[in-house]
Amino acid sequence: MVWPSPCSVPPQVSVRGLSVQRDGARAVTRCLPEETPTALVFNGTTVAVMMVSPADLEDFACGFALSEGFIDRLDQIEALEVVGHGAGMEARFWVPQAQAVAIQARRRSMLGPVGCGLCGIDSLDQAIRPLPVLDHGGVTLSRQEVGQVTDSLRAHQPLHDQTHAVHAAGFMRPGQGIIIAREDVGRHNALDKLIGAMAREGLDAGAGAIVLTSRVSVEMVQKTVVAGCPVLIAVSAPTAHALRLAQAARLTLAAFARGGGFDVYAHPERIETGATDAA
Amino acid sequence: MVWPSPCSVPPQVSVRGLSVQRDGARAVTRCLPEETPTALVFNGTTVAVMMVSPADLEDFACGFALSEGFIDRLDQIEALEVVGHGAGMEARFWVPQAQAVAIQARRRSMLGPVGCGLCGIDSLDQAIRPLPVLDHGGVTLSRQEVGQVTDSLRAHQPLHDQTHAVHAAGFMRPGQGIIIAREDVGRHNALDKLIGAMAREGLDAGAGAIVLTSRVSVEMVQKTVVAGCPVLIAVSAPTAHALRLAQAARLTLAAFARGGGFDVYAHPERIETGATDAA
Repeated sequence: MVWPSPCSVPPQVSVRGLSVQRDGARAVTRCLPEETPTALVFNGTTVAVMMVSPADLEDFACGFALSEGFIDRLDQIEALEVVGHGAGMEARFWVPQAQAVAIQARRRSMLGPVGCGLCGIDSLDQAIRPLPVLDHGGVTLSRQEVGQVTDSLRAHQPLHDQTHAVHAAGFMRPGQGIIIAREDVGRHNALDKLIGAMAREGLDAGAGAIVLTSRVSVEMVQKTVVAGCPVLIAVSAPTAHALRLAQAARLTLAAFARGGGFDVYAHPERIETGATDAA
Repeated sequence: MVWPSPCSVPPQVSVRGLSVQRDGARAVTRCLPEETPTALVFNGTTVAVMMVSPADLEDFACGFALSEGFIDRLDQIEALEVVGHGAGMEARFWVPQAQAVAIQARRRSMLGPVGCGLCGIDSLDQAIRPLPVLDHGGVTLSRQEVGQVTDSLRAHQPLHDQTHAVHAAGFMRPGQGIIIAREDVGRHNALDKLIGAMAREGLDAGAGAIVLTSRVSVEMVQKTVVAGCPVLIAVSAPTAHALRLAQAARLTLAAFARGGGFDVYAHPERIETGATDAA
């Protein structure tokens, strides 16, 4: 495997603007987050183009490939290089040719036009793909650490400190707090970067919880479950659809986690909640 | 044109959860936003599936078709019906057959695998499609109304009032404030719904400003410019890439608009800023 070529585009840019307040206008310099089109290319064929914060792009590419099921394990990658050109960045994967053919076939079936020729039923069913069901147990968290972990994640958001406009995804282990985190202008990308980084560092996603600065939509549950992580903790709300998926996949879902408190909507048995403590 | 079939899935759902706070745990009922896979189908062929708040789906379908350039005007639609089935919703468009063929060809070229066979250059270039350049002028806004408009938008967010977790896009006219708004779990969808609703009501996007509760990424600038609206005002930050597109397309871009103040990053000439007042 090859892990070369750090990204040449900085993830934040200083720009000049005019700040207009009640007491007048003045020139200001602000630090804005960058976003760069990034193509995911398998054996020379593009399967997706995403807008991404240009940092940790190898993590992003690996995490996206794992989340989307293009690969099951990193050792299926023969080589990966991230290269830039005028229009953006490319993450170029080289995988065994038979696998590349399967990836391209799967990608074709994921995207329209679909084969049925009459309506979108095939694509609609595929939009909510079947998820594995996580094992019981795996990890137990105290209510104190769940309530405090999104505040702890703030210490791992250097790009957000500069720009006030990017999301983060982190991974915590019981008793250890946040051990790794990644940032991106897109919340999906931040999670894919985290999942890719954890895989590259050999961290077991089953031994802790993923923590998000964002809301929990369907895709966030899908990625967390496919990564094998049994607990998802978010600052903001889940959607009702995401909650149903979490319940079915046996994923513990905590939301509105801030200031020491949180809600649990699915599988609270992995958290020592006050309800348990009071029993 | 046919505009039937209100969506049968409610955009919010009451769920039971466990609220865990410092002083203990208690059962709570929360109102969460729903999201539903929605297929965009042209003459029987699916060209996209999006996760959408199930409300105003006709507006969403029309706005998405306009934003993506599948149609230029609503009168190119022979019929549109929104129908539900087990897996989600379908927006079924019927357009002249020659146009459907062009839409399907365009959609194929937008998505990988691309034709070049070696790398993703074709797709990367298409990710940042060329935008038209807006005319000079068109609208002039006072600094007071720009500073206050995101607060005014709050009065048009009934789904957010219930769920605290959805975005909104509104349209304001000088001296009139917000005249129409739409909501969605996704910020892109909220803007597409607004653009579709304005087209269906015959409102001139060139005569006012689009107002967003969200950040401004590349797609938000693309949609606003394609809709022909000369001013974009957002609560949160733009990305640097979105700012470059706004500058090139002659779009006035105001951000961090809240509490009476805002920043302007591109084409301030459409806003009577303090800088002008002081001259």
